[in-house]
Amino acid sequence: MSGFADSDLTRNDFLGGRIRLWQPRNGYRAGVDPVFLAASVPAASGQSVLELGCGAGAAILCLAARVPGLALTGIELQPAYADLARRNAAGNGQDLEVIEGDISALPSGMKQRQFDHVIANPPYYRAGAHSPATDTGRSIALGERTPLPVWIEVAARRLAPKGYLHMIQRIERLPDMLAACSGRLGSVEVLPLAARTGRAPDLLILRARKGGRAGFRLHFPLILHTGDRHLRDEDHYRPEIAAVHRDAEALPWPGTGSAAISRK
Amino acid sequence: MSGFADSDLTRNDFLGGRIRLWQPRNGYRAGVDPVFLAASVPAASGQSVLELGCGAGAAILCLAARVPGLALTGIELQPAYADLARRNAAGNGQDLEVIEGDISALPSGMKQRQFDHVIANPPYYRAGAHSPATDTGRSIALGERTPLPVWIEVAARRLAPKGYLHMIQRIERLPDMLAACSGRLGSVEVLPLAARTGRAPDLLILRARKGGRAGFRLHFPLILHTGDRHLRDEDHYRPEIAAVHRDAEALPWPGTGSAAISRK
Repeated sequence: MSGFADSDLTRNDFLGGRIRLWQPRNGYRAGVDPVFLAASVPAASGQSVLELGCGAGAAILCLAARVPGLALTGIELQPAYADLARRNAAGNGQDLEVIEGDISALPSGMKQRQFDHVIANPPYYRAGAHSPATDTGRSIALGERTPLPVWIEVAARRLAPKGYLHMIQRIERLPDMLAACSGRLGSVEVLPLAARTGRAPDLLILRARKGGRAGFRLHFPLILHTGDRHLRDEDHYRPEIAAVHRDAEALPWPGTGSAAISRK
Repeated sequence: MSGFADSDLTRNDFLGGRIRLWQPRNGYRAGVDPVFLAASVPAASGQSVLELGCGAGAAILCLAARVPGLALTGIELQPAYADLARRNAAGNGQDLEVIEGDISALPSGMKQRQFDHVIANPPYYRAGAHSPATDTGRSIALGERTPLPVWIEVAARRLAPKGYLHMIQRIERLPDMLAACSGRLGSVEVLPLAARTGRAPDLLILRARKGGRAGFRLHFPLILHTGDRHLRDEDHYRPEIAAVHRDAEALPWPGTGSAAISRK
């Protein structure tokens, strides 16, 4: 796959139109997850951010739209998606360095670099554990080629002291994620995302800190929707969740006045 | 410590008076935690239950009060508490086998036995991590002599195929618990217990199954109290929680009609 023809692409609005992204019509398309991931990061102007597996750039460009003045770097395995990320950055007036490569075999230049923040929305399904997608690019984005623990190991190595990892994943992978953090990252916090009050959460945002020494924390789930019935994902967001999507607000992270935490 | 004098003991009601327990006035005293633990176990008449570190017997006797016809065994390190457990069993008309010993060095007879259920309310604090209690027995009951992972390893070895472990612990220890389950127990479920809606849960009940193959599940927290303010633990329980304490009802475990699951 050398690239997408324009006719293979659609352009979609994120954050109330603050970000417009070209995405493959039939490939991997960003949903709400990269938006939540971006909204959870307490980044401050002047800091550096690395996204592992940036795809077409949804998460890191949403973060850049909320927090100006970040130094942005993304790594993407699939050249066609890396091209799309560059095009999307330019189209949104952002300076995003996109490196094509496998996160488990980073180019040597990357191995000397450290970042204040690492973010990732790794594939949700173990290789072979899901029905193969008909689209190869989508299949790579959804299915796990690189084991999830490797994502966390690579993130830990690329983080500066006191730097933060934020990762969004399925709840089912929590044991693997915690095991991978052990001995590498501390002050681990888990924010479960639940569709409704009383529903088992499907997703979580993991926050962990390089050199963090605080004990593990599990927060009360962040409830996404009002009411008891699930209609469409986009419908009936609670006001603070709608503000994340429409107004590029930070996610209300428990125990902080806002997601904006002062620089280390 | 060879035993408690009667003057050192108080007698307390559990489960609306269905269970009355002698407990040391100044030693380790059972709170609501063993009641929640007992209420979470989907045991059925005729099954066998082993409690690791049974203390004066609160958890296993509360379980016996709810589910008649169980074969009950407890292991307790401290002879004075083991004596108390025997006395409490007799006083409540229960046949409880109490074995004095260290769970990390079980008597050889125990090593051939398997149980349908293992329950435990292990010490909440790492050895040396908390202020020493002025009472030695209480200090042993609260502080961790045997590392938490060993409790899970021992439980896994003593469980029959498809047998259930239930354990109540502080949320902060979840990573250690999940790591200890890995490769030994499956179908792990975590039910966080939160004092109020929106509050970070302090405690969790871990459910895991010998030979279980289901993916990890994190349930929506069980909310204990109504309203926004925390008064006393005993006050303002939500009706289904009050029913656990007053009427010896099973804990409403998410995803099941009740905690009563049919025998394997």
